[in-house]
Amino acid sequence: MSSSSAPLPLVTGHDVRLAARRNECTVPTAGLAKGYLQANMIVLPSRYAADFRSLCARNPVPCPLIGESGSVGQYDAVKSSLSSLSSSKSQSVSVIQTTDLDLRRDVGRYMVYHDAKPVKTGCLDICNEWTDDHVAFLIGCSYSFETALTNAGLTPPHVYANTNVPMYRTTIPLCPAGVFTGSTYVVSLRAYNATDLAKVRNVTAKYHATHGEPIAWGWDSLEKLGIKDIGKQDWGDSPVTQDGRPLASLVGSEEVIPVFWGCGVTPQEAVMRAGLEGIVMGHMPGHMLLLDCVDDDIV
Amino acid sequence: MSSSSAPLPLVTGHDVRLAARRNECTVPTAGLAKGYLQANMIVLPSRYAADFRSLCARNPVPCPLIGESGSVGQYDAVKSSLSSLSSSKSQSVSVIQTTDLDLRRDVGRYMVYHDAKPVKTGCLDICNEWTDDHVAFLIGCSYSFETALTNAGLTPPHVYANTNVPMYRTTIPLCPAGVFTGSTYVVSLRAYNATDLAKVRNVTAKYHATHGEPIAWGWDSLEKLGIKDIGKQDWGDSPVTQDGRPLASLVGSEEVIPVFWGCGVTPQEAVMRAGLEGIVMGHMPGHMLLLDCVDDDIV
Repeated sequence: MSSSSAPLPLVTGHDVRLAARRNECTVPTAGLAKGYLQANMIVLPSRYAADFRSLCARNPVPCPLIGESGSVGQYDAVKSSLSSLSSSKSQSVSVIQTTDLDLRRDVGRYMVYHDAKPVKTGCLDICNEWTDDHVAFLIGCSYSFETALTNAGLTPPHVYANTNVPMYRTTIPLCPAGVFTGSTYVVSLRAYNATDLAKVRNVTAKYHATHGEPIAWGWDSLEKLGIKDIGKQDWGDSPVTQDGRPLASLVGSEEVIPVFWGCGVTPQEAVMRAGLEGIVMGHMPGHMLLLDCVDDDIV
Repeated sequence: MSSSSAPLPLVTGHDVRLAARRNECTVPTAGLAKGYLQANMIVLPSRYAADFRSLCARNPVPCPLIGESGSVGQYDAVKSSLSSLSSSKSQSVSVIQTTDLDLRRDVGRYMVYHDAKPVKTGCLDICNEWTDDHVAFLIGCSYSFETALTNAGLTPPHVYANTNVPMYRTTIPLCPAGVFTGSTYVVSLRAYNATDLAKVRNVTAKYHATHGEPIAWGWDSLEKLGIKDIGKQDWGDSPVTQDGRPLASLVGSEEVIPVFWGCGVTPQEAVMRAGLEGIVMGHMPGHMLLLDCVDDDIV
């Protein structure tokens, strides 16, 4: 197992998929193949598929559904779930179609759940677990707008630091849908200067299919979100500022504030909370599936 | 001013609009012209229109946008905002089109806000306030599924009691969008036997464009929603059970529980919280706009 993806020339989404398929892309994918669309993935038994689509339709900010298996059991083709609301492109139906795809191997690291309990964390493929009754769902990822933020001079701190974005459970409830009850938003955090907030909101707002603008910001938002300690993220690495200081040392600062976006880990939490029976799989947080299209294809 | 709509033969949505236009439909519209689509309405200066569409797209459960003025300033025609997600009908683009329409007069009672403060409550028309810069937005209404509940033997208690549905402010935040920040869900309440919950959820789930299934239920949900006293609704009438008992006398009951749905008053709250400048108008809670199509056209 290699933990170095940096030496490889991972220029396109396809490059990253092939590297993952060779088990050579085992680090978080933030910043890899810049500009290519990255997706969260959750794989469910088909009997839960309709309720999951409804969960996403009712909670489009944390759960922006962009695609799913072409048919039940299919791991080598995906079809778009984008509505006209999410894309002004007339080709929206096909925009996320990706060739040379194996959803069982093309993510760097996976999670496997059995009866809603994690049984594998960070495994390199899910070939043994995938059945012809499974359906994969692809959820937009905030990495999509990080390129736009960087281009606007607002590089996210974890990109500077070359770490994984910090993610937190919150107490904000999802709108329930069928079997999916009792779950809450997961959010990702990027710290910014308070004076940059309007620009940060504006740059990310147009990425409707990848969480869009932030859902909360400022130190007051911690209480509203039910985050007790900003230094104790639930996934990813510790939050830092753009100049590398620990954000936990700046609680209450007027200069630097936390900014929170909906996070595509939310559906995996929903699956856990719903107590789904059988085998469910997903990407390991931070380790995304890369597609052939580019971020701006779905703006 | 008449407060009696019951004696009139209000059979169709058009009948109700004409009665309202004559100022003869000044009672809440629940149960009128059964089966016809009822809509919440909010009228904004055009500079806020794009942000409002985004607010609805990000919060489709409390703010299911179903239509808007055909063009800026137009009060006699509406165009559909329904996406393919909300309707399987191929004619979804035109399904809510309604003829012989005057958005300034066809709601029984209106609210008028100036610089985010209410200046008129329950007025009979908005002819003097409407300008050629205003855009009306129509939001799905939970009345749409009340017919379905009634047909399933689950008549909502306020329909039995011939009162207005109780509505509450909550602490559940909306996902912000542009100028619309700091707002929270408004919910409507119907009390049901706990044993009917699964059926109630199932009957309403398919009404995606009119709030869909409940967002919370049970006595525990009061704390999660931030509702301190179920006997103190913010709009509408006091909650009762199906057999007419005050729900406030049954707090903690295992037999009868409160069930909460997203409510189309949410956008009016959002407008207030956002501190929008200028003249904003809306329906008075409970007093809806009736359209020519029927509820099942948008299922």
